[in-house]
Amino acid sequence: MKLKTLFTVAMGATALPTLALAQDAAPDIQPYILTTLLFLVGGFLVFWMAAGFAMLEAGLVRSKNVTMQLTKNIALFSIASIMYWLIGFGLMYPAEWSIEGWLGPFFAVTSLEPVGLDAADAALDYASAGSDFFFQLMFVAATASIVSGALAERIKLWPFLIFVVVLTGVFYPLSGSWQWGGGWLSEMGFSDFAGSTIVHSVGGWAALAGAIVLGPRLGKYKDGRVNPMPGSNLALATLGTFILWLGWFGFNGGSQLAAGTVGDITDVSRIFANTNMAAASGAVAALILTQIMFKKVDLTMVLNGALAGLVSITAEPLAPTLFGALWIGAVGGVIVVFTVPMLDKLKIDDVVGAIPVHLIAGIWGTIAVVFYNSDASLVTQITGILAYGIFTFVASLILWIVLKGVMGIRVDEEAEINGLDTSELGMEAYPDFAHG
Amino acid sequence: MKLKTLFTVAMGATALPTLALAQDAAPDIQPYILTTLLFLVGGFLVFWMAAGFAMLEAGLVRSKNVTMQLTKNIALFSIASIMYWLIGFGLMYPAEWSIEGWLGPFFAVTSLEPVGLDAADAALDYASAGSDFFFQLMFVAATASIVSGALAERIKLWPFLIFVVVLTGVFYPLSGSWQWGGGWLSEMGFSDFAGSTIVHSVGGWAALAGAIVLGPRLGKYKDGRVNPMPGSNLALATLGTFILWLGWFGFNGGSQLAAGTVGDITDVSRIFANTNMAAASGAVAALILTQIMFKKVDLTMVLNGALAGLVSITAEPLAPTLFGALWIGAVGGVIVVFTVPMLDKLKIDDVVGAIPVHLIAGIWGTIAVVFYNSDASLVTQITGILAYGIFTFVASLILWIVLKGVMGIRVDEEAEINGLDTSELGMEAYPDFAHG
Amino acid sequence: MKLKTLFTVAMGATALPTLALAQDAAPDIQPYILTTLLFLVGGFLVFWMAAGFAMLEAGLVRSKNVTMQLTKNIALFSIASIMYWLIGFGLMYPAEWSIEGWLGPFFAVTSLEPVGLDAADAALDYASAGSDFFFQLMFVAATASIVSGALAERIKLWPFLIFVVVLTGVFYPLSGSWQWGGGWLSEMGFSDFAGSTIVHSVGGWAALAGAIVLGPRLGKYKDGRVNPMPGSNLALATLGTFILWLGWFGFNGGSQLAAGTVGDITDVSRIFANTNMAAASGAVAALILTQIMFKKVDLTMVLNGALAGLVSITAEPLAPTLFGALWIGAVGGVIVVFTVPMLDKLKIDDVVGAIPVHLIAGIWGTIAVVFYNSDASLVTQITGILAYGIFTFVASLILWIVLKGVMGIRVDEEAEINGLDTSELGMEAYPDFAHG
Repeated sequence: MKLKTLFTVAMGATALPTLALAQDAAPDIQPYILTTLLFLVGGFLVFWMAAGFAMLEAGLVRSKNVTMQLTKNIALFSIASIMYWLIGFGLMYPAEWSIEGWLGPFFAVTSLEPVGLDAADAALDYASAGSDFFFQLMFVAATASIVSGALAERIKLWPFLIFVVVLTGVFYPLSGSWQWGGGWLSEMGFSDFAGSTIVHSVGGWAALAGAIVLGPRLGKYKDGRVNPMPGSNLALATLGTFILWLGWFGFNGGSQLAAGTVGDITDVSRIFANTNMAAASGAVAALILTQIMFKKVDLTMVLNGALAGLVSITAEPLAPTLFGALWIGAVGGVIVVFTVPMLDKLKIDDVVGAIPVHLIAGIWGTIAVVFYNSDASLVTQITGILAYGIFTFVASLILWIVLKGVMGIRVDEEAEINGLDTSELGMEAYPDFAHG
Repeated sequence: MKLKTLFTVAMGATALPTLALAQDAAPDIQPYILTTLLFLVGGFLVFWMAAGFAMLEAGLVRSKNVTMQLTKNIALFSIASIMYWLIGFGLMYPAEWSIEGWLGPFFAVTSLEPVGLDAADAALDYASAGSDFFFQLMFVAATASIVSGALAERIKLWPFLIFVVVLTGVFYPLSGSWQWGGGWLSEMGFSDFAGSTIVHSVGGWAALAGAIVLGPRLGKYKDGRVNPMPGSNLALATLGTFILWLGWFGFNGGSQLAAGTVGDITDVSRIFANTNMAAASGAVAALILTQIMFKKVDLTMVLNGALAGLVSITAEPLAPTLFGALWIGAVGGVIVVFTVPMLDKLKIDDVVGAIPVHLIAGIWGTIAVVFYNSDASLVTQITGILAYGIFTFVASLILWIVLKGVMGIRVDEEAEINGLDTSELGMEAYPDFAHG
Repeated sequence: MKLKTLFTVAMGATALPTLALAQDAAPDIQPYILTTLLFLVGGFLVFWMAAGFAMLEAGLVRSKNVTMQLTKNIALFSIASIMYWLIGFGLMYPAEWSIEGWLGPFFAVTSLEPVGLDAADAALDYASAGSDFFFQLMFVAATASIVSGALAERIKLWPFLIFVVVLTGVFYPLSGSWQWGGGWLSEMGFSDFAGSTIVHSVGGWAALAGAIVLGPRLGKYKDGRVNPMPGSNLALATLGTFILWLGWFGFNGGSQLAAGTVGDITDVSRIFANTNMAAASGAVAALILTQIMFKKVDLTMVLNGALAGLVSITAEPLAPTLFGALWIGAVGGVIVVFTVPMLDKLKIDDVVGAIPVHLIAGIWGTIAVVFYNSDASLVTQITGILAYGIFTFVASLILWIVLKGVMGIRVDEEAEINGLDTSELGMEAYPDFAHG
């Protein structure tokens, strides 16, 4: 393998033989260290998004279902961590497991580097495999969190967790390999920098299939009217949004996959600034639009507007100018305000607005790539969107229907009315407080 | 531009011609990368302070005003992000927009570096402009958050947001340019490392002007007595304080503005240790003092004591010894315990204690610089304090009065009594819970 | 001191005289900078664990004791910060204070490096002393937080804080010096990478001694039955768990104590991946086990399962494979589910499950070192466990008994029934909410 070194760069063709020899002895290890650092910091920020989803969803469900929502969120993250190790990472990055041939994709990352790796054995043009695995692992959990939010307040715990097992072990990594594993979509030129489609839309499609099979909450659509079921704790929901916003700097910034050169770290800076701008403009768009449309600002729309802005910029957080990030994010915010009521018209009950935020804004973000990235073509972007949509929706639909047939996915009516916390788990989230 | 390189340092005057040539080819890019990294990590930590302010304030207002407080906090951060890009950054750092001359200060950071910047075109003696913008942007939001806390529970949403537009787009950056933009105060030798005055006092002065124009909450000062209106959720308030404490490592540490040399990273370490010490001693001072004065420890005072300790050390977190940080922070904690009741005597209703914490402790911290930084003089420090105070207070006062005249800044009595959440936004923060 | 440099590595024995001279002039400062960065980032992550403990404990106590629990947590962190500077750091790392001889261990870190340290004066083979102090300081606070959780809901504030003063200033650093200060246990070959024993068990032993002296909460064990006293806010408890999980990446990853070589940063990556895996498997183990044993998933057990997984991997997060981390963490989760009821049988009232999580899983993790680290021996590991256990338990027991005799450590019955918040502090955490 050819390694860049300070010496080769410095000396060019004029290097003395002694120095040329020195080149082999002292490869430049800084890019490897810095990119590994990017993955570790980016990875813990994306990990933090798991807490963000948990708080957002716990805040947007009614108090009688909060324990269940929290349980699902910590369980899905834990399951995703294990499944992605067991098989997901290997499915997604086939190139990584060739050295462990006979196991195929399983336990791919038993190929983690040994303790005290020697520089001579390291992938000095990239980063530590351990840090890469750590970073990529965090993304799959985000996908599962999206599903959890949409299907809240009526789904049984275990069928949901079985769905998570398959989603994080098979569906997500298999389709992810088409692009990030170097598969057919990447060869075709599809462009999705940090996963507007690959992560967010995929989560949204899986959620949509689930919402259709599961049906709406009791009393949500009654006598032709939409019955609002307000979230029980908007402080938690706002905290969750801020956590997600913070984590997104790692989500998008880490997806540069390199931090060891001037160009790369400058690109990461650009991504950070753009990511923040899109979130801000998504929030402001929803703020202004809800004031105009409903004569009152709607905080949950503002929160979802910020998140939709973030999803929108995720497919291409690097190429746009700050003005580009502003309008791409703002369109995301507008999408949320308009599509939340549309889903209700279709009687698709998405408790936290996950489908507008992650699926619809994810599609928008994937299309918006063409405005700033001249390598992207609209046809290819739509091809990618359709490929992920059809595969994930159909596969999820089948799985949800099978789960429904085999074990049932919905709690019974009495349990739903009493709340999942007491009926399913026997544990209230706020036992000391009187209900209003 | 002259660039430091490993080679120049290594070779000194004895370098061979070949190597001198090599110097041009291989500048040392590590300081640029590391300082950029400092801005990115510091920036996301300061971003996180927005969540801290939101939780602190949501916890310290009554439950009927929580949705409004959350809405203001996410909205003000989003607006600050846009305004600082639109004009603020350009006003504050005039040197940054000369290359885009005809636009003046507007959209200054359309001069973000291009994608894939070449090392030869980078400001290798500093950091990525994108990371710098990202970092500086986060500070302006803190200023606006301070105002939001003080004026809670009675101000209308939109006049407040319009104030934020002007504060973050004009007032803060204009006065900030006097010091951090290389203006007259910096030439005079004023010293404010991370913004005790430039950020915290400025927020405090704007809040004070607002509190005077707005008047106290109904029933707060009645029959000559101060009527306590306890915060609705001290767990959130404590969480907010811990978030702010965490974010402050980025606030002060990042303000070293360099991390690529032994001296700089060691200084950043010193700043981290001092910042933590000042927060701890501010909390302990308030803990002991409230026990002595009131015979009971007052948690909200302890929280504000920690924050006041942090504000106090912000003007000079580098020069003091750890013992210095201890006593400077402790004085901050003492200030809070004494000035919170003083404001009440003046019938200035500051809901969360923002004025004692950010304005009074900010002044103290700016004065305390002279004890450890021999380059600072008391006269210049006071000049700076007065300049920021007079400008911000007067400008804010005028703006609040104009807003009051034009559109009114205060909700009507009935709305205030019922709470802003139902009357202004039609959305309760905790709808499932019965009121005690 | 011999310093590694790019030049010595590059040139080996063939270096020209000119270049050999250059070696002195340009030592490689990157490892110093990167390790310092590791301590700063690791340190702020471990700081964040203070918020995690506060939220976990505030969520697991009843609403009438929340203000007290929050007060204890912010106070103990602040006190720990001061005590560890005043004497703890010096006791723990005697080598660090020899240069300040006459002060002995006191104020050891007045030996913080001067501002603008020159590279020639830096410990280039390690990191900034300031960053090291900052990092180590955060660990001692974790120990104190463990005690705070176990003894909640009936201990008086001030005796608890006095215990914290001694624990963080003397007990923890003194015993910590046996291993991390280069003392007799480290010479014997005891192995505890990030502190399963030194931090977590020590906290657990101190808590156990306190729980015995203090006695159970009123009504907890009545008529031979265990009376459940459910936590008041499981959303906060879950948030606290996620915060701790996040902070643990710094806790374990930073304990590599080096990040400037390929081997070190790759090891840190491995630690991150293993830490996450152990947490995940601890949670999943508790999830499955509570379903099997109680026919219902128990969220608090799942949370404690994740934490027990983290404690279990803390003694050796580097050597195990991911599969190793999985089963070591899972055993931790199993331990929690079985030992929480066992403690209740012994009528030891541990409000948040701190003793199972930190003491029992800490012992397990310390033993588990022998499975993957061939340098560790079972006998030495047990020796270390016993040494820390006996010392901390006995010393703590004596101190608790003395405190009980001198000033009393328990609130009176009426105060306990009414809740510590109103009786001791005069401030409710959730004053606006009606009790259920």
